[in-house]
Amino acid sequence: MRRVAIVGAGMSRFGEDWNRGFRDMIIDAGTSAITDANISGDKIDGMFIGTMAAGRLIGQEHIGALIADFMGLNPVPSTRVEAACASGGVALRQGFMAVASGMHDTVVVGGVEKMTEVSTSEVATALGGAGDQEWELFMGATFPALYAFMAQRHMLDYGTTEEMMAHVAVKNHKNASKNKYAQYQNEITVDHVLKSKTIASPLKVFDCSPITDGAAAVVLMPYEKALSFTKKPVEIIASAQASDTIALHDRESLTKLKATEIAAQSAFKQAKLAPRDIQVAEVHDCFTIAEILAIEDLGFFKKGEGGKATMEGLTALNSQISINTSGGLKGCGHPVGATGVKQAVEITWQLRGQGGERQAKNANIGLTHNVGGSGATCVVHIMKKE
Amino acid sequence: MRRVAIVGAGMSRFGEDWNRGFRDMIIDAGTSAITDANISGDKIDGMFIGTMAAGRLIGQEHIGALIADFMGLNPVPSTRVEAACASGGVALRQGFMAVASGMHDTVVVGGVEKMTEVSTSEVATALGGAGDQEWELFMGATFPALYAFMAQRHMLDYGTTEEMMAHVAVKNHKNASKNKYAQYQNEITVDHVLKSKTIASPLKVFDCSPITDGAAAVVLMPYEKALSFTKKPVEIIASAQASDTIALHDRESLTKLKATEIAAQSAFKQAKLAPRDIQVAEVHDCFTIAEILAIEDLGFFKKGEGGKATMEGLTALNSQISINTSGGLKGCGHPVGATGVKQAVEITWQLRGQGGERQAKNANIGLTHNVGGSGATCVVHIMKKE
Repeated sequence: MRRVAIVGAGMSRFGEDWNRGFRDMIIDAGTSAITDANISGDKIDGMFIGTMAAGRLIGQEHIGALIADFMGLNPVPSTRVEAACASGGVALRQGFMAVASGMHDTVVVGGVEKMTEVSTSEVATALGGAGDQEWELFMGATFPALYAFMAQRHMLDYGTTEEMMAHVAVKNHKNASKNKYAQYQNEITVDHVLKSKTIASPLKVFDCSPITDGAAAVVLMPYEKALSFTKKPVEIIASAQASDTIALHDRESLTKLKATEIAAQSAFKQAKLAPRDIQVAEVHDCFTIAEILAIEDLGFFKKGEGGKATMEGLTALNSQISINTSGGLKGCGHPVGATGVKQAVEITWQLRGQGGERQAKNANIGLTHNVGGSGATCVVHIMKKE
Repeated sequence: MRRVAIVGAGMSRFGEDWNRGFRDMIIDAGTSAITDANISGDKIDGMFIGTMAAGRLIGQEHIGALIADFMGLNPVPSTRVEAACASGGVALRQGFMAVASGMHDTVVVGGVEKMTEVSTSEVATALGGAGDQEWELFMGATFPALYAFMAQRHMLDYGTTEEMMAHVAVKNHKNASKNKYAQYQNEITVDHVLKSKTIASPLKVFDCSPITDGAAAVVLMPYEKALSFTKKPVEIIASAQASDTIALHDRESLTKLKATEIAAQSAFKQAKLAPRDIQVAEVHDCFTIAEILAIEDLGFFKKGEGGKATMEGLTALNSQISINTSGGLKGCGHPVGATGVKQAVEITWQLRGQGGERQAKNANIGLTHNVGGSGATCVVHIMKKE
C-alpha cells in the first residue's frame, strides 16, 4: 500500500446559513481545498462524500454524482458514504483506501450537511435514524436521551459532575471564539451552561452540539507525489474504523464506547505510537459527556478521570493535550456529514502551523475521532506533519 | 493490487414481503452468501452495504453499523454507500477496492432495500431524490417521466417502437419465470404490455420495473486465497464507475448514457476484452427503454439497433448474448440498493453453471451494469470463471 498525504484543506463557514444551499456549501469547501492543494480540477480522479441524512433533510439522494456534477468534475467516479455522524470520517477512510491501493491518484474527500431547512423536530427524527429506529427512536429515545443515559451512569460510577461537563462546553466555546469558521464565536461560562434549559437530565442545552449547515473538504494524494505540490504535506499514518451495537441497551457498558477503544488501538498500532505522542486532537463532542468518554476511550486519560482532567484545564489549548482546537462539534458546529472531514481540515491546519490564535504549540502529530450515532461506528485517523 | 474473487453469493426472495423487515432480508442474503462461501463469520474483516433511501423508507440511517450488528459481526468496520439505484454496484466496487488494496482480506458486500412499508407516492418521492431534486423532482419530473423523455427521443431518432420496448419486458418476464428468487414468475405477452395503463407516454406500467423488497450479498477475497475455499471462484477482472450530470436537461444526448459508455470503455480496457467476449450480462432495465440504451451503450449492439435486436430475439437466453437471465429489474424486481449486488449474484451463479433452467450455455465471461438515477452514476464490472 502507498503512503497517503493531505495536500489541501478547506471548509465553509459553519452556522445557520439562510443564504446558501447544500450545493453552494460543498462547492465552497471543495474549491477551497482544491485551490489550497495547488492543483487543477482535471487532476482529480476520484471523490468520496460523507452525508448523513440529505434524503430526509433536503429530499436529495445520489449525493456523490450531484457534487461531481456541480463541481464540474464529471466523469470522475464519485461515491457517497453514510455512517450517521461518522459519515465524514468514513469518507476520509474510503479516500485513504482509494489512494493507498493505487485505484486513484488524486482524491477529493468532502463532507456536507444542510440541516436548517426543516423543523427542529424533523431534524431530531432524522438524527434518530443514527440509532436503532425500531427499538430506540420509535420508543422516544432521541439522541440527547441516549447520551443522558451515558452521562448518568458516568456520574454514578466515577463521580463526574455537571460542572465538569460544563467545562467541556466552556473550553470549546473559547477555542471556537478564535475560529472564523465556527458557528459560535462567543465565550460562555460554567454558569451559563449550568443554568441553561434541561434537554435530557443531566444534559442541558449548552451540553449539546447545535444544528448546523456546513461543508468541509480535503485533497489526498500519494505521499511521494505530494512533495511536488506542497512543502507541508500532512501524512495520514493510521486509518481505523470499528463497529458496535446500534442500540445502547445491547452494550456491556454505558460509560465507554467500545468501538472507539478498538479503532484507537488499531490506529495506534498502525502508527506505532501511543496516546502520549499526540499533541492535538479533534474528538467527537456531540454532547459534553461524549468528549469526556472520548478522551478516556482514546487513552489520553484514565477511565473516569476525563471530567476532572477537563475541569483542571488539561485539555485546554497548549495544556497536556489540546483537545478540539476548532471548537469541536459544540462550538464550531455539527453539520453531521461534514464533521469528520472538518476534523481532518483542523488537524491539517494545526500541523501546518496555520491555527492562528488557536495554534497548538509543537503540534507534530494529530488525531481525529469521529463517532456515528451513540457509538455504533467509530473512526480514528492519525496524521503527522513532515 | 491483488486479484479479487467472489467466493460466495446469496439473495433473499425478491417481492412485496409483508412478513420480513429490512434486517431480516439482509441477514437472509448475508448468511446465504457466507454459507455458500464456506467460511465462518470470524473470518470477515470488512463490510460494504448498498442502500439508497432507508432514511425515507424506514426512518433508519447508519445502515452499515446496523447490519454488522444484526449479522453478529461487530466490531468489523461496516460502511454504507449510496449512489441511488447504483448503490449496490458502488458497494461492490468499494469491496473490490478494499480487497485489492490489501486493507481487507475477506469482505461481505451487501445490498438491501425495504420499499413497501410506505405509500407508492412516498416511494416515488424518495426515488425522485436520485435525480435533481431542485430542478426535476420539485417540478414534477418523477422517474417514469425522465425515462419517457429518453424513450420519445430514441423513437424519433432511431425508429424504435413501443412494440420493441415491450419485447424487453416479455423476455425478462420469461427469464424471471425460471428464477425462484424473482418477484414475478409469470410470463407475459407483447399484448399485455401494449395494453397496460400508460404511466408516462410511451411508457406503460409493464415497461416499468416494480417496487420491491429484497437483499443480496456476495463474499470477496483475494484470488489466491479463494482457491482454498471453492473450486469455482469467479474473478472480478474489471471494476469501473463514471459520473454524468444529475439532471437530464444538462446532457448532450437523451439517447445514450454517457457514464455507461465511459465506465464500459474503462472496464473493457482493464479486462483487455471487447463486448463480443461477453456471453451473459445483467444490465439496468429500470424501464424497458433503459435496457435498449444499455445494450447499445455497452457496445453489444450499434446505437439505435437495440430495440430491433431485442425484438429479433438476439438478447434472449442462449441467443447472441444472454441479457438479464435473472429476469432483470423488470422481472426479478428492483429493491434499489440491492439491485447492483443481485446482478453480481446472478452472474456468479451463471459462471458457475448454477443457473438451472435459465443457465446460459458456455458462460465464461459475464458483465454487470448498474445505473444510478437517470444515468448520473454508472458502474460496470466484468467477471470471469476459472
